[in-house]
Amino acid sequence: MATQQVALCGVRDQFPVFGQTLPNGQPVTFLDTAASAQKPNCVIEAEERVQRSHYANAYRGVYEFGAQIDEELEATREAIEKLIGAEDVSEIAFTAGSTMSINMVAFGWGGRHLQEGDEIVLNEMEHHANLVPWQQVAERTGAKIVYIPLTEDGQLDLLAFDELVNSRTRVLSVTGMSNMLGTINPIRRLADRVHEAGGIVVVDGAQSVPHAPVDVQADGIDFLVFSGHKLYGPTGVGVLYGRKDLLEETDPLLFGGHMIDQVTKSGSTWASAPAKFEAGTLPIVQAIALKSAIDFVNELGFEAIHEQESLLTRYAMEALSQVPGLKIYGPRLEDRGAIVSFTIDGAHPEDLAQLLNRKGVFVRHGHHCTMPLHDLLNVSSTVRASFGVYNTTEDVDQLIAAIEFARQRLRLA
Amino acid sequence: MATQQVALCGVRDQFPVFGQTLPNGQPVTFLDTAASAQKPNCVIEAEERVQRSHYANAYRGVYEFGAQIDEELEATREAIEKLIGAEDVSEIAFTAGSTMSINMVAFGWGGRHLQEGDEIVLNEMEHHANLVPWQQVAERTGAKIVYIPLTEDGQLDLLAFDELVNSRTRVLSVTGMSNMLGTINPIRRLADRVHEAGGIVVVDGAQSVPHAPVDVQADGIDFLVFSGHKLYGPTGVGVLYGRKDLLEETDPLLFGGHMIDQVTKSGSTWASAPAKFEAGTLPIVQAIALKSAIDFVNELGFEAIHEQESLLTRYAMEALSQVPGLKIYGPRLEDRGAIVSFTIDGAHPEDLAQLLNRKGVFVRHGHHCTMPLHDLLNVSSTVRASFGVYNTTEDVDQLIAAIEFARQRLRLA
Repeated sequence: MATQQVALCGVRDQFPVFGQTLPNGQPVTFLDTAASAQKPNCVIEAEERVQRSHYANAYRGVYEFGAQIDEELEATREAIEKLIGAEDVSEIAFTAGSTMSINMVAFGWGGRHLQEGDEIVLNEMEHHANLVPWQQVAERTGAKIVYIPLTEDGQLDLLAFDELVNSRTRVLSVTGMSNMLGTINPIRRLADRVHEAGGIVVVDGAQSVPHAPVDVQADGIDFLVFSGHKLYGPTGVGVLYGRKDLLEETDPLLFGGHMIDQVTKSGSTWASAPAKFEAGTLPIVQAIALKSAIDFVNELGFEAIHEQESLLTRYAMEALSQVPGLKIYGPRLEDRGAIVSFTIDGAHPEDLAQLLNRKGVFVRHGHHCTMPLHDLLNVSSTVRASFGVYNTTEDVDQLIAAIEFARQRLRLA
Repeated sequence: MATQQVALCGVRDQFPVFGQTLPNGQPVTFLDTAASAQKPNCVIEAEERVQRSHYANAYRGVYEFGAQIDEELEATREAIEKLIGAEDVSEIAFTAGSTMSINMVAFGWGGRHLQEGDEIVLNEMEHHANLVPWQQVAERTGAKIVYIPLTEDGQLDLLAFDELVNSRTRVLSVTGMSNMLGTINPIRRLADRVHEAGGIVVVDGAQSVPHAPVDVQADGIDFLVFSGHKLYGPTGVGVLYGRKDLLEETDPLLFGGHMIDQVTKSGSTWASAPAKFEAGTLPIVQAIALKSAIDFVNELGFEAIHEQESLLTRYAMEALSQVPGLKIYGPRLEDRGAIVSFTIDGAHPEDLAQLLNRKGVFVRHGHHCTMPLHDLLNVSSTVRASFGVYNTTEDVDQLIAAIEFARQRLRLA
């Protein structure tokens, strides 16, 4: 296949991981960005710079390094505020990642406000991180979880959703983009209905924030969580956005230094948000380097990112659909992001992933932390190829060639 | 003052932050290691290496990068097992830091096992991170917190402690070393008494692990927490050690991917430890680089570290005690680690810290996340100088000279 034009030329060179040939002579074909993205030079260098020149703990030192670190942390907070259209930097808390952030919302907001008879609206395409905390909160509070049915092609059934939301609906928690099907959910459409019913809207942006513009105010998002490491930033840092008034009525989940106002032998009071949600030493270096990742994404622009990812996804879906016995899960191109999960008749996903690895093609297999979705699809495991800004149509060509190799090895061709 | 012999010559050169002259022409005199340690080249380079050559998410990919990442994470787990004398690597969970780890013990173990009438033994020298979670658990379970009295010189009153422990004692949570007084607590001595009474022992090792050998089995420690960033490692990663049988009867605090066994629409079951305590994507790069920090400390050896730190602390205490109106808090040299907190009559700690900063001397001021201790000492704020392996007696000389400068500016001299 001929290499097609790509929107983001030169970007791949900013990722040092691709500047190598694997021991088996193959190039690196990294198709696991939905699990975690590779890091551009600017992010790696930001971490290095801080630690070589002025590292210190945050928010507690009047000395020069401490003051510089505080400024840089606040610069990241401002970059996040702009990235997601928040009203104020105090609505942005640093966490360890999306999972921790969702737990903070589920227990901190849900644990305080939910009670017996209340309904939590979820659906089966959610990642375990957006299911299990709510199951726990439901168990503790007596609230009930209701699931929005999915359509045959892996989208939310909106008519059923409209029926299902009612005066008992207290919260909808939904992914911006499915990490397995690639489905992009119509957040604004969902939010309008839930708000009308008096509920709040929590969005798991782990997959969606890196790939499309989010505007929490315009989209009607009350809580938004995402991770640094999927946004081309460091591991160990994530974000919790909460609307100001909601954060005020959200309890902290973790207790310790920095999040307090007063501590006495007999009890304690809390600082205001975001400090209330930032107990202990922050992932300082990672939070600072996250700004470099956001700058990197902004410089590319979401329009170019979308164009590139659509092109790759289309190219991959077209090529994969030519493979005998291959089944792609999820909706048509227009309704999905840069994720394509599939199975091949007669090939175990793990065997497939292992054979692709021999050709330097790195895909993920398994349940992708979406067991209920796999139950619904009646499949125990799938192979997932997912794309980032550094991927090219050549990567897809490599994938297709590697699948051909695997099919031969598995005597399917 | 003449520079004295130091035990760890050449170490400072491994920390790039010290290879600079500040804009005001001063060298960097970093005396805030108790808040967070500077990073040696090997740690900075480990983070860089992973991200440039084989970064991937952990525990889910069969492909080459994923397998390599998994191996490196397990290598860190093994290094931690050896460092603290654990029985098995499954007793070591990666967390975001000490604060998160203590919260996991307090809520996960305490929330499950404590009930009305039970007693939690704390003391007023504890960091907020080892007070506030227990206050919350006490509130939720009806258990009662009892405080071990402190002696005049800031040590645990052991006779009072022996009286206070009884059949209602379910847990002692205590710092290995006070982050304000420097007091080193006799863990084995405390543990014997608590175990005899049928309780368990939780140790906040945030300060102690970087400075002295810990052996959880020999010391009678049931849960141990510590942070990477105070051990010359990266921010964003910490450790929870728990005795195997205790981890089994500890509930997870955070829920999501990786920590589960099965997830269905109606409920979920958990994986075994340590995965049960590692919901979501780990701080992968930081956990891998933590091994470099541990290797660094091991190479120096705790004997040499102790010798150096004792020498510096003695030198600092002697020199500081010559300053008119200066009061040092905490015990005599033999009972403390490399931390010296003090006040100077007529000088506000913040003013003092700011004036020291002008001379490139970086100390911390405030309540050091120990408000109850400051209440007890009847002082609202102190200045703290703390030492790491890179400090020298010249740093102490700089501190003393800067104090002299501050005293003149404050018209105290």
